[in-house]
Amino acid sequence: MTFKLDTRLEKDCYEIGSMKLCKVLLMNDSQYPWFILVPEREGVRELFQLNRDDQISFLIESNLLSKALTVVFQPDKLNIAALGNVVEQLHFHHIVRFKNDPSWPDPVWGKKAAVPYTEDQAQEIMEKIKQALGSNLRKIN
Amino acid sequence: MTFKLDTRLEKDCYEIGSMKLCKVLLMNDSQYPWFILVPEREGVRELFQLNRDDQISFLIESNLLSKALTVVFQPDKLNIAALGNVVEQLHFHHIVRFKNDPSWPDPVWGKKAAVPYTEDQAQEIMEKIKQALGSNLRKIN
Repeated sequence: MTFKLDTRLEKDCYEIGSMKLCKVLLMNDSQYPWFILVPEREGVRELFQLNRDDQISFLIESNLLSKALTVVFQPDKLNIAALGNVVEQLHFHHIVRFKNDPSWPDPVWGKKAAVPYTEDQAQEIMEKIKQALGSNLRKIN
Repeated sequence: MTFKLDTRLEKDCYEIGSMKLCKVLLMNDSQYPWFILVPEREGVRELFQLNRDDQISFLIESNLLSKALTVVFQPDKLNIAALGNVVEQLHFHHIVRFKNDPSWPDPVWGKKAAVPYTEDQAQEIMEKIKQALGSNLRKIN
Protein backbone atom coordinates (compact mmCIF):
# COMPACT_ATOMS: atom_id res chain seq x y z
CA MET A 1 0.00 0.00 0.00
CA THR A 2 1.25 3.47 -0.85
CA PHE A 3 1.93 5.56 2.23
CA LYS A 4 -0.22 8.64 2.68
CA LEU A 5 0.23 11.02 5.59
CA ASP A 6 -2.79 11.17 7.89
CA THR A 7 -4.90 14.23 7.03
CA ARG A 8 -4.92 15.52 10.61
CA LEU A 9 -1.12 15.34 10.87
CA GLU A 10 -0.95 17.09 7.49
CA LYS A 11 -3.22 19.85 8.76
CA ASP A 12 -1.54 20.35 12.17
CA CYS A 13 2.10 20.14 11.06
CA TYR A 14 4.76 21.47 8.72
CA GLU A 15 6.69 18.82 6.80
CA ILE A 16 10.46 19.16 7.26
CA GLY A 17 11.53 16.19 5.16
CA SER A 18 12.06 12.43 5.33
CA MET A 19 14.79 10.19 6.67
CA LYS A 20 15.19 6.57 5.52
CA LEU A 21 11.97 5.41 7.20
CA CYS A 22 10.20 8.38 8.74
CA LYS A 23 8.73 11.67 7.74
CA VAL A 24 9.89 14.48 10.05
CA LEU A 25 7.14 16.93 10.97
CA LEU A 26 7.05 20.14 12.98
CA MET A 27 3.86 20.54 15.03
CA ASN A 28 2.44 24.01 14.42
CA ASP A 29 2.48 25.00 18.10
CA SER A 30 5.06 27.60 19.01
CA GLN A 31 4.74 26.90 22.74
CA TYR A 32 7.08 23.91 22.46
CA PRO A 33 9.60 22.76 19.84
CA TRP A 34 7.49 19.71 18.98
CA PHE A 35 8.46 17.24 16.27
CA ILE A 36 6.83 14.07 15.01
CA LEU A 37 8.36 11.04 13.28
CA VAL A 38 5.94 9.14 11.04
CA PRO A 39 7.17 5.82 9.59
CA GLU A 40 6.16 5.78 5.93
CA ARG A 41 4.30 2.51 6.30
CA GLU A 42 0.61 2.19 5.67
CA GLY A 43 -1.80 0.48 8.06
CA VAL A 44 0.49 0.27 11.11
CA ARG A 45 -0.75 1.47 14.51
CA GLU A 46 1.76 0.05 17.01
CA LEU A 47 5.57 0.04 17.19
CA PHE A 48 5.65 -3.76 17.52
CA GLN A 49 3.76 -4.08 14.21
CA LEU A 50 6.69 -2.63 12.28
CA ASN A 51 9.06 -5.34 11.04
CA ARG A 52 12.42 -5.64 12.77
CA ASP A 53 14.40 -3.68 10.17
CA ASP A 54 11.91 -0.82 10.31
CA GLN A 55 12.05 -0.81 14.11
CA ILE A 56 15.83 -0.48 13.98
CA SER A 57 15.46 2.34 11.45
CA PHE A 58 12.98 4.03 13.77
CA LEU A 59 15.41 3.73 16.67
CA ILE A 60 18.26 5.22 14.62
CA GLU A 61 16.08 8.07 13.38
CA SER A 62 14.70 8.78 16.85
CA ASN A 63 18.31 9.00 18.07
CA LEU A 64 19.30 11.30 15.20
CA LEU A 65 16.34 13.59 15.82
CA SER A 66 16.84 13.55 19.61
CA LYS A 67 20.51 14.46 19.25
CA ALA A 68 19.66 17.21 16.75
CA LEU A 69 17.06 18.62 19.15
CA THR A 70 19.56 18.46 22.00
CA VAL A 71 22.15 20.40 20.00
CA VAL A 72 19.70 22.98 18.66
CA PHE A 73 17.55 23.59 21.74
CA GLN A 74 19.50 22.32 24.78
CA PRO A 75 16.29 20.96 26.37
CA ASP A 76 15.72 20.25 30.02
CA LYS A 77 14.02 17.04 28.90
CA LEU A 78 12.77 15.29 25.79
CA ASN A 79 9.32 13.70 25.83
CA ILE A 80 8.98 10.79 23.39
CA ALA A 81 5.61 9.16 22.94
CA ALA A 82 3.46 7.05 20.64
CA LEU A 83 -0.13 7.59 21.74
CA GLY A 84 -2.39 7.42 18.68
CA ASN A 85 -5.75 7.39 20.41
CA VAL A 86 -7.04 10.01 17.99
CA VAL A 87 -4.73 9.81 14.93
CA GLU A 88 -4.51 6.12 14.05
CA GLN A 89 -1.39 6.33 11.86
CA LEU A 90 1.67 5.32 13.89
CA HIS A 91 3.58 8.47 14.87
CA PHE A 92 6.13 9.34 17.52
CA HIS A 93 6.11 12.68 19.29
CA HIS A 94 9.55 14.12 20.13
CA ILE A 95 8.89 17.17 22.25
CA VAL A 96 11.52 19.54 23.60
CA ARG A 97 10.60 20.47 27.16
CA PHE A 98 11.85 23.32 29.32
CA LYS A 99 11.25 23.89 33.00
CA ASN A 100 9.72 27.26 32.11
CA ASP A 101 7.43 26.06 29.30
CA PRO A 102 3.66 26.57 29.68
CA SER A 103 2.86 23.00 30.78
CA TRP A 104 5.94 21.87 32.72
CA PRO A 105 6.13 19.36 34.41
CA ASP A 106 2.90 17.98 32.94
CA PRO A 107 2.71 16.36 29.51
CA VAL A 108 1.77 18.81 26.75
CA TRP A 109 -1.32 17.10 25.36
CA GLY A 110 -4.66 18.71 26.05
CA LYS A 111 -3.25 21.44 28.27
CA LYS A 112 -3.15 24.57 26.16
CA ALA A 113 -4.61 25.44 22.79
CA ALA A 114 -1.90 25.49 20.12
CA VAL A 115 -0.29 28.85 19.35
CA PRO A 116 0.63 28.69 15.65
CA TYR A 117 4.01 29.88 14.38
CA THR A 118 4.26 32.79 12.03
CA GLU A 119 5.47 31.61 8.62
CA ASP A 120 8.91 33.13 9.33
CA GLN A 121 9.20 31.43 12.71
CA ALA A 122 8.25 28.06 11.21
CA GLN A 123 10.76 28.41 8.37
CA GLU A 124 13.51 29.38 10.81
CA ILE A 125 12.98 26.42 13.12
CA MET A 126 12.69 24.00 10.18
CA GLU A 127 15.91 25.33 8.69
CA LYS A 128 17.75 24.71 11.98
CA ILE A 129 16.54 21.12 12.13
CA LYS A 130 17.35 20.51 8.47
CA GLN A 131 20.88 21.70 9.09
CA ALA A 132 21.22 19.58 12.23
CA LEU A 133 19.92 16.45 10.45
CA GLY A 134 22.04 17.19 7.40
CA SER A 135 22.49 14.25 5.04
CA ASN A 136 20.21 12.06 7.16
CA LEU A 137 17.36 13.76 5.35
CA ARG A 138 16.62 12.31 1.93
CA LYS A 139 17.11 14.56 -1.05
CA ILE A 140 13.77 15.64 -2.43
CA ASN A 141 13.35 14.84 -6.12
CA MET B 1 27.19 2.47 39.27
CA THR B 2 24.80 0.00 40.84
CA PHE B 3 21.25 0.42 39.59
CA LYS B 4 18.68 1.48 42.16
CA LEU B 5 15.02 1.92 41.27
CA ASP B 6 13.79 5.50 41.69
CA THR B 7 11.99 5.85 45.02
CA ARG B 8 8.86 7.34 43.45
CA LEU B 9 8.53 4.48 40.97
CA GLU B 10 9.10 2.08 43.88
CA LYS B 11 6.31 3.74 45.85
CA ASP B 12 3.77 4.01 43.00
CA CYS B 13 4.30 0.56 41.44
CA TYR B 14 4.39 -3.17 42.03
CA GLU B 15 7.50 -4.94 40.74
CA ILE B 16 6.64 -7.83 38.42
CA GLY B 17 10.18 -8.92 37.57
CA SER B 18 13.06 -8.15 35.22
CA MET B 19 13.87 -9.01 31.64
CA LYS B 20 17.43 -8.87 30.26
CA LEU B 21 17.63 -5.07 30.50
CA CYS B 22 14.48 -3.71 32.10
CA LYS B 23 12.53 -4.03 35.28
CA VAL B 24 8.82 -4.56 34.60
CA LEU B 25 6.53 -2.61 36.91
CA LEU B 26 2.77 -2.44 37.34
CA MET B 27 1.51 1.06 38.13
CA ASN B 28 -0.82 0.89 41.12
CA ASP B 29 -3.77 2.45 39.32
CA SER B 30 -6.62 0.07 38.57
CA GLN B 31 -8.22 2.45 36.05
CA TYR B 32 -5.83 1.31 33.32
CA PRO B 33 -3.56 -1.73 32.89
CA TRP B 34 -0.43 0.42 33.09
CA PHE B 35 3.07 -1.02 32.96
CA ILE B 36 6.50 0.55 33.06
CA LEU B 37 9.83 -0.67 31.69
CA VAL B 38 12.87 0.67 33.54
CA PRO B 39 16.29 -0.08 32.01
CA GLU B 40 18.56 -1.13 34.88
CA ARG B 41 21.11 1.52 34.06
CA GLU B 42 22.06 4.25 36.45
CA GLY B 43 22.23 7.93 35.49
CA VAL B 44 20.42 7.70 32.14
CA ARG B 45 17.56 10.11 31.33
CA GLU B 46 17.02 9.77 27.59
CA LEU B 47 16.63 6.81 25.23
CA PHE B 48 19.49 8.02 23.03
CA GLN B 49 21.84 7.95 26.03
CA LEU B 50 21.58 4.15 26.27
CA ASN B 51 24.28 2.40 24.28
CA ARG B 52 23.25 0.66 21.05
CA ASP B 53 23.04 -2.85 22.54
CA ASP B 54 20.85 -1.59 25.38
CA GLN B 55 18.60 0.24 22.92
CA ILE B 56 18.10 -2.97 20.96
CA SER B 57 17.33 -4.80 24.22
CA PHE B 58 14.82 -2.10 25.08
CA LEU B 59 13.16 -2.48 21.68
CA ILE B 60 12.93 -6.27 22.07
CA GLU B 61 11.53 -5.99 25.59
CA SER B 62 9.05 -3.29 24.59
CA ASN B 63 7.87 -5.65 21.82
CA LEU B 64 7.60 -8.60 24.22
CA LEU B 65 5.64 -6.55 26.74
CA SER B 66 3.41 -5.00 24.06
CA LYS B 67 2.59 -8.40 22.60
CA ALA B 68 1.90 -9.80 26.08
CA LEU B 69 -0.44 -6.90 26.83
CA THR B 70 -2.17 -7.40 23.48
CA VAL B 71 -2.79 -11.09 24.22
CA VAL B 72 -3.86 -10.55 27.83
CA PHE B 73 -5.99 -7.40 27.47
CA GLN B 74 -6.91 -7.04 23.77
CA PRO B 75 -6.48 -3.24 23.96
CA ASP B 76 -8.02 -0.71 21.63
CA LYS B 77 -4.62 1.03 21.67
CA LEU B 78 -1.27 0.95 23.46
CA ASN B 79 0.25 4.21 24.64
CA ILE B 80 4.05 4.09 24.87
CA ALA B 81 5.91 7.06 26.30
CA ALA B 82 9.12 8.22 27.91
CA LEU B 83 8.36 11.53 29.60
CA GLY B 84 10.46 11.82 32.77
CA ASN B 85 9.73 15.44 33.62
CA VAL B 86 9.16 14.46 37.25
CA VAL B 87 10.92 11.10 37.71
CA GLU B 88 14.39 11.53 36.23
CA GLN B 89 15.27 7.84 35.88
CA LEU B 90 14.62 6.70 32.29
CA HIS B 91 11.36 4.75 32.19
CA PHE B 92 8.89 3.80 29.46
CA HIS B 93 5.18 3.75 30.09
CA HIS B 94 3.23 0.99 28.30
CA ILE B 95 -0.42 1.71 28.93
CA VAL B 96 -3.33 -0.40 27.75
CA ARG B 97 -6.11 1.87 26.54
CA PHE B 98 -9.75 1.15 25.93
CA LYS B 99 -12.32 3.36 24.26
CA ASN B 100 -14.40 3.15 27.44
CA ASP B 101 -11.59 3.89 29.93
CA PRO B 102 -11.92 6.99 32.16
CA SER B 103 -9.62 9.26 30.11
CA TRP B 104 -10.09 8.08 26.50
CA PRO B 105 -9.09 9.53 24.06
CA ASP B 106 -6.86 11.79 26.16
CA PRO B 107 -3.52 10.65 27.59
CA VAL B 108 -3.80 9.27 31.13
CA TRP B 109 -1.36 11.56 32.92
CA GLY B 110 -2.78 14.13 35.27
CA LYS B 111 -6.41 13.33 34.44
CA LYS B 112 -7.70 11.25 37.32
CA ALA B 113 -6.31 10.45 40.76
CA ALA B 114 -5.00 6.87 40.86
CA VAL B 115 -7.39 4.21 42.13
CA PRO B 116 -5.16 1.61 43.82
CA TYR B 117 -5.65 -2.12 43.25
CA THR B 118 -6.65 -4.39 46.09
CA GLU B 119 -3.79 -6.77 46.90
CA ASP B 120 -5.71 -9.63 45.23
CA GLN B 121 -6.34 -7.62 42.05
CA ALA B 122 -2.67 -6.64 41.81
CA GLN B 123 -1.49 -10.22 42.30
CA GLU B 124 -3.93 -11.47 39.69
CA ILE B 125 -2.85 -9.00 37.00
CA MET B 126 0.84 -9.56 37.76
CA GLU B 127 0.39 -13.32 37.49
CA LYS B 128 -1.20 -12.93 34.04
CA ILE B 129 1.71 -10.82 32.80
CA LYS B 130 4.29 -13.17 34.31
CA GLN B 131 2.68 -16.05 32.46
CA ALA B 132 2.52 -14.10 29.21
CA LEU B 133 6.17 -13.03 29.47
CA GLY B 134 7.20 -16.54 30.55
CA SER B 135 10.92 -17.26 30.23
CA ASN B 136 11.63 -13.68 29.11
CA LEU B 137 11.56 -12.80 32.79
CA ARG B 138 14.78 -13.54 34.63
CA LYS B 139 14.68 -16.12 37.37
CA ILE B 140 14.87 -14.43 40.74
CA ASN B 141 17.70 -15.75 42.90
